[in-house]
Parts: sequence; C-alpha cells; structure tokens
Amino acid sequence: MPAPTTPPAALARRLRLVVITDRRLAGPGGVAAVADAALRAGAPAVQLREKHLPPRDVLPLARHLRDLTRTAGALLFINDRIDLALAVGADGVHLGPDDLPVQAARRFAPPGFLIGYSTDDPATAREAVARGADYIGCGAVYATWTKADTGPAIGVYRLAEVARSVNAPVVGIGGITVERAGEVFAAGAAGCAAVGAVMADPHPGRIVRAFLRAVPSGYS
Amino acid sequence: MPAPTTPPAALARRLRLVVITDRRLAGPGGVAAVADAALRAGAPAVQLREKHLPPRDVLPLARHLRDLTRTAGALLFINDRIDLALAVGADGVHLGPDDLPVQAARRFAPPGFLIGYSTDDPATAREAVARGADYIGCGAVYATWTKADTGPAIGVYRLAEVARSVNAPVVGIGGITVERAGEVFAAGAAGCAAVGAVMADPHPGRIVRAFLRAVPSGYS
Repeated sequence: MPAPTTPPAALARRLRLVVITDRRLAGPGGVAAVADAALRAGAPAVQLREKHLPPRDVLPLARHLRDLTRTAGALLFINDRIDLALAVGADGVHLGPDDLPVQAARRFAPPGFLIGYSTDDPATAREAVARGADYIGCGAVYATWTKADTGPAIGVYRLAEVARSVNAPVVGIGGITVERAGEVFAAGAAGCAAVGAVMADPHPGRIVRAFLRAVPSGYS
Repeated sequence: MPAPTTPPAALARRLRLVVITDRRLAGPGGVAAVADAALRAGAPAVQLREKHLPPRDVLPLARHLRDLTRTAGALLFINDRIDLALAVGADGVHLGPDDLPVQAARRFAPPGFLIGYSTDDPATAREAVARGADYIGCGAVYATWTKADTGPAIGVYRLAEVARSVNAPVVGIGGITVERAGEVFAAGAAGCAAVGAVMADPHPGRIVRAFLRAVPSGYS
C-alpha cells in the first residue's frame, strides 16, 4: 500500500535518483535484473516504463518490481497507467500530457499515493502541482536517444527555471549521465532520472553508486 | 459515485440493452448525440468505447456521458480503462483479455463498482466471475463489421452455453439487430449489446425503443 503523505523534502530525497526502465536497453537479464542491481546499489526509486505492451502483459513485471522495491525500501512508480500502479500497490504513477490529467487521477487515488507529472514549462508545472502533482519530471535536459517523442533538449537553465517555480521536487530527465549529475543538482533539481545511463550499462550497480556519489553532500 | 452492490437479477435488468459507442459510426452530432437519443428512448446502459484516443482526449466525452446517463438513471461503463471509469465516477468498466485482469482491477475498485469481462468461453467466464466480474460480454454472436479483432461468429448455441455456465448476467454482443434480439434473449442472455445497430442508425431512439420492445415480457 502507498505510504502516508510524504512531505516535499522527504520525497525529494527519495527522488535523488529515479531509475527508469527500458526493455530495449536492458541486457539479457531484462529490466528486472537491471532494476535488481540498481536497487542493491542503493537506488531509492524505480519507474516502470512500458509504452507498448498491453496492461495484462506488464502486470507480472510490475508485481516483480514491487517486490524488489519493497524489499529494498525504494519507491516504485508506474509510467502512464494509474490502474496498473494501484493494482500492484505501487507508491505512485508518473503522468504525461496524453495521460489521465493529474486532477482526474487525484480524484480516486488513495491518500498518500504519489503523482508525478512531466513538463518543461514553469506555468504548467505550477498548475500540475496546484492540481495535485507531488513532483515534476522535467526534460529532456540533454539530447537523448532513449525516447522518440521528446522535443529538443531544454538545458539546465530551463530546468532551473522550472525548479524555482514550484514548491515540489523537480527531477531532471533526458540524457543525464554521472558526469552531468552535478550540474543537474546545481540547477536546483531534487534528483536525476536515468534511463539509458543505467539500463544500457553492463554494470548498472556501479553506475547507480556513481550517481549517488554525485549527489551534493549538503543535500537535504 | 458507483451504486451500492447490485444483485445479479437487478443488474441483469439494467443490462437488457447496452448501447456501445463508436465514433466512426455516429452521425454528425457524434457519439454524445446518439447516446443522448438512446437514453431519452430508455436505454438502461451505455458503454463508452474509444480504442484509439489518449485518455486525456476521452475524458471530456466520458464526463459528458456520465452527466447524460446520470440524468437518465442509466448505467455508464467505460471500455478497457478503469482509471477513466473511476475518474468520471462511472458505474463500471468493461475489460477484455488484454486489459488489466479482473482480479487486479477488483483489488482497488471501490465497493459496488461493476466489472464486465469479455469472453466466449464457458470456463473463462466462470473464472472471471469467480475473480470478481459482475457480468460477461459474450460474442461475437453474429458476424460483425464494427470491430476488427473479433473472431468468427460464435452463434446463439455457444452464447447459451456461456449463459448457462455462470451465475451472472451474460450480455450478447456482435451483429445483434432488433430482429435477432428475441433469439439472443431466448438463448439465456440477460441483454443485448448494440454497437452498429444503434450508432449507425439515423434514428437511434427508434431503434432503442424497438430493442426494448423485443425484451421478453416475462423478463425478471
């Protein structure tokens, strides 16, 4: 079951690294093996992203990731589908512009259920938070090759603008590597979302530990 | 909000005609105009079926149909997406083999929320009911041109077999016209689902009244 309502600072800390799955990039052990390695290395949050499979086929993987994240004490988010998230007892859902709007999802989400929303626009981010989003995913910060429908890279200045404009954690996403994590945090992001950097690496645990070392020491 | 738990006999009566939307078939007024005419003519249930639009774009129509069905005292079902159904306060969802499984949906559906499941197999129907389905959609009873992914027509004998095998209402679907409604009820179905017969008719209210006249007089 979802945790009780999480204050923004505590949530921010749990979002300092969000590992997002991508079955096209995962090695021979698949998404579950990468997630397992990432969690053992201390990843505090995993988001299951499956854009093209019917819900029935995503469900077993979602349940498995729920088990792994629960054991690790990490958050589990499901991309796009709040129904899947609720069915497996995930901590939250991550919604985008085509999905069920935040306010509509909040209408039936249980207390404490987390809702993230993707936008690179400060006004849209404020509106999403006002309507019930707990955090914002903002990007693509850098050029990325793991998602086809993103616009051009927004850069860290725009990321900083979005981070300043909401009283909620903002997670940078898109082309973020260990080397770039420092400037993502410096821009005011609460965390980094990693897709390819973790999924496509033969040693995902090592990458996760490097990401976590890049978190500023004064981090809340 | 959904009604309190409905006993099978009372539910069966409300499922005696389920008007299923299809935007490709609806006239110039669109799905909402056809649904409105059908409801004014006494249709006791409407199912919103939108297979190809993103949830955000379906939401306004779903809300409008919720208003229309509530005013008419009719049931509203949403096809495939329980998240949309919950967001608009629909009475239920209709799930198919690719969707979230019935048991997974039941896990977070509020009390009294109705779940339908599509199958033409008696054992699968029994299993779905055991796992929490309130009714079964069974077809295609006759050859149909409104849905591309249905198998060959199953006929009324198979429909009767499914109807006998579950202690829950079974709604026949697929190619059902007013002329065929009598034999669908005779096969033991609790109701008829109509897609093309209502959606594509220039006088949907007239067709709905004709369907309702075809309901056996001894009906529960």
